[in-house]
Amino acid sequence: MSEVFQKATLDLNAARSELHDLLSLTGAEVSLNNLPAGAAVPFVHAHKQNEEVYIVLSGSGELYIDGKVESLKAGDVFRIAPQGRRAIRAAAADGIKFLCIQCAQNSLKEYTDTDGVMCENEKAPWH
Amino acid sequence: MSEVFQKATLDLNAARSELHDLLSLTGAEVSLNNLPAGAAVPFVHAHKQNEEVYIVLSGSGELYIDGKVESLKAGDVFRIAPQGRRAIRAAAADGIKFLCIQCAQNSLKEYTDTDGVMCENEKAPWH
Repeated sequence: MSEVFQKATLDLNAARSELHDLLSLTGAEVSLNNLPAGAAVPFVHAHKQNEEVYIVLSGSGELYIDGKVESLKAGDVFRIAPQGRRAIRAAAADGIKFLCIQCAQNSLKEYTDTDGVMCENEKAPWH
Repeated sequence: MSEVFQKATLDLNAARSELHDLLSLTGAEVSLNNLPAGAAVPFVHAHKQNEEVYIVLSGSGELYIDGKVESLKAGDVFRIAPQGRRAIRAAAADGIKFLCIQCAQNSLKEYTDTDGVMCENEKAPWH
């Protein structure tokens, strides 16, 4: 049984940080990636069960997806279904920092208002 | 049936951006949050089914979790199990930018090497 709360500190500029094992995650793998200018993930891949969500935090680059190329810039976010054939690279003159979240497709039942439970009788010390 | 690939562009400095509906996510809700200096989420909450993962991207603040207070700074990452009673605030003199990922607890079966499938016969145009 893992603890209710588990915390760690990343170097936000590391080449790659993976959170699943670091935080004992049970619902996702999350990676933070920094590809330097001109670098590319050297293979095309798909997934069996997992949907991926990407969040481009800074820099720019390109995504190869199912035979097409999409340009990427800071603020871009995208979802790829498991069968999508994908590869990513940084721009030739600019690195790219992005988060990638893997979750099992169709695994989320409720969220936010419908999964959240208000703790009416409990206040944080600043309230 | 949703598309294999879906993309949008966020304002990374918006108060809150939610990705579930924007990208037709089926395995997670992901929010990007910017609390200005001194701001706090005005309630303590827990969850029914969902584990949450937080990634502090910049700034600083505090997390209330099950009766304790943890300080937060850029690079901090943490997991909270569904039953954890939580609230977050920005530091009095500093905003905080963080991602929050909600996924169903125990929903991830395989990931990365074991869920990924190499597309051996397919190359991105830059290879």
